Amino acid sequence: MAGNVNVGQVRNKQVLLKEFVSGFPKDSDMLFTTSSVNLKLPEGSNGVLVKNLYLSCDPYMRGRMSIPLFTSYVDSFQPGSPISGLGVSKVIDSRNQNFREGDLVWGLTGWEEYSVISSTESMFKIQHTDLPLSYYTGILGMPGMTAYAGFYEICTPKKGETVFVSAASGAVGQLVGQFAKLMGCYVVGSAGSQEKVDLLKSKFEFDEAFNYKEETNLDAALKRYFPEGIDIYFENVGGNMLDAVLLNMRIHGRIAVCGMISQYNLDHPEGMHNLMHLVIKRIRMEGFLVNDHFHLYPKFLEMVIPLIKEGKIVYVEDTVEGIENAPSALIGLFHGRNVGKQVVVVDPL
Amino acid sequence: MAGNVNVGQVRNKQVLLKEFVSGFPKDSDMLFTTSSVNLKLPEGSNGVLVKNLYLSCDPYMRGRMSIPLFTSYVDSFQPGSPISGLGVSKVIDSRNQNFREGDLVWGLTGWEEYSVISSTESMFKIQHTDLPLSYYTGILGMPGMTAYAGFYEICTPKKGETVFVSAASGAVGQLVGQFAKLMGCYVVGSAGSQEKVDLLKSKFEFDEAFNYKEETNLDAALKRYFPEGIDIYFENVGGNMLDAVLLNMRIHGRIAVCGMISQYNLDHPEGMHNLMHLVIKRIRMEGFLVNDHFHLYPKFLEMVIPLIKEGKIVYVEDTVEGIENAPSALIGLFHGRNVGKQVVVVDPL
Repeated sequence: MAGNVNVGQVRNKQVLLKEFVSGFPKDSDMLFTTSSVNLKLPEGSNGVLVKNLYLSCDPYMRGRMSIPLFTSYVDSFQPGSPISGLGVSKVIDSRNQNFREGDLVWGLTGWEEYSVISSTESMFKIQHTDLPLSYYTGILGMPGMTAYAGFYEICTPKKGETVFVSAASGAVGQLVGQFAKLMGCYVVGSAGSQEKVDLLKSKFEFDEAFNYKEETNLDAALKRYFPEGIDIYFENVGGNMLDAVLLNMRIHGRIAVCGMISQYNLDHPEGMHNLMHLVIKRIRMEGFLVNDHFHLYPKFLEMVIPLIKEGKIVYVEDTVEGIENAPSALIGLFHGRNVGKQVVVVDPL
Repeated sequence: MAGNVNVGQVRNKQVLLKEFVSGFPKDSDMLFTTSSVNLKLPEGSNGVLVKNLYLSCDPYMRGRMSIPLFTSYVDSFQPGSPISGLGVSKVIDSRNQNFREGDLVWGLTGWEEYSVISSTESMFKIQHTDLPLSYYTGILGMPGMTAYAGFYEICTPKKGETVFVSAASGAVGQLVGQFAKLMGCYVVGSAGSQEKVDLLKSKFEFDEAFNYKEETNLDAALKRYFPEGIDIYFENVGGNMLDAVLLNMRIHGRIAVCGMISQYNLDHPEGMHNLMHLVIKRIRMEGFLVNDHFHLYPKFLEMVIPLIKEGKIVYVEDTVEGIENAPSALIGLFHGRNVGKQVVVVDPL
């Protein structure tokens, strides 16, 4: 695919989906190619040409790597085409009146060095550039909004309540826990390594944290940390953890279902056996997608930016350098190899 | 147990739980005895002596027949003691200032001809006696309030939405369907026999109904009746039906979890595999217990009594005569043998 590069053209390294994935994604499911891109958009274009700076690895992307199953959710990637995902980019050329050369933006882009964005509805212009730009893949972007909407809107938390967060050191979980602490809740997180558990307690100041891989009985583990039960569960993992949580919810508890990463690579999801507890404890269990909540984005930034600047909220990223490391970073997400938000640096500017 | 009957004393036939039940309840799990009761309460009593007229068979009673599992729900019955349940009764003697001889009441009573009620907090005085008294075990009692609270409070229905009700000809389901029709919803019910399906369509005027036992593929059945998906599911059965419904919910759908009768007699509940649809479709799934909603009871009666009198709501009961038939009526509930609300007539007055 790498052809001659004409005047005004530059090479464009890309990550393509090779074919639809089943089970855990592997290196061989993706391939690299180099095409070329003209740094000036042609006459008649209505698009925006961007240089990608940071690419975001997010669990929901797993669904896009498979044959489309659900008409209502997200489109699948096209085998043979670049993977798409959220990222932070710089506008190189624009034929769209809302964006101009030099603008920094975040939104849906391609896993490549340069992308031409033709539909810009989901592209946000970055106004606050005095924080790390990579944060717009995380705390200031989709995962931040997910934590915000999921916790404040879906969990309807109250001071003093008990909160459990799974995948708690991840892009979303680390924020949910910190929001809950700021509200005066008792917060426990689960994660998959001692390093992450330490991070939860020392850096994010969770009250307690545990390594679910070292617990032979999740029900017993939850009873240890929540002798009086759980008011709020922020669900990121699904599977056995959810089933154990259902046994430990308190009356009128709430479960915000953000995702179920433990189930994404299974051919057949595990069975949940304890749903009758929804009735017994009068639990509200509610799934949500951040896309329904972006009208709150300005309000969210207004809240979170001062908190970051005052050091009241911290954010941990797991950064890999170079687009050539993007596939393994994405794959690592499903094995819990990332510690914090997984970001790929394409070009740090 | 049947002793000599003294002056002022009458024989009191009782149904006792023999021992804790596992699996489906059987005739041999209950036994009859005859004790005697004095028709005058002793000095110093603060109770109410009632003659039981109608006894109610309700699915939740299954939980009370087992070793207590859930501290937060209902107490287990005591082996060797009379079963307790809801019923309609007449006050024979009262030492409680809120009740007097001749009052008709409904609430928690014993499976026996006469009961002494010592805690009267959950006893309602029947004000409207121009409707069948048995209705206070059904449409005008706990099941009616369950349908009302579950549908209007938990399902948050809107005109034109699509509604699915399982166990739709039962004590609660038949009302939910009729409430939904009154609101202008499209309503489909499932039940376990052709007779019940006919009832749903002809008597309760559901738009459609089907016999789940004749469907080899519940997902396909739901797609046939809900080509555009389900906005509201009123869940009475659990198990495979719930899993199939999850596949067919619409975006922002709601599932009110009233009960899961298909699971009550299993040693280990079946697994639900499709909970990720809660996220994909942003579904709210909420368990509820009618006990949390009795503050709405006066409002409910104000709505439902005129509807009954005007013939806009009908109610079907399945009545057996005589307390000696109470155990088989209760057992029948878990095999779907009842058609409509299962009532036991102890004494029709």
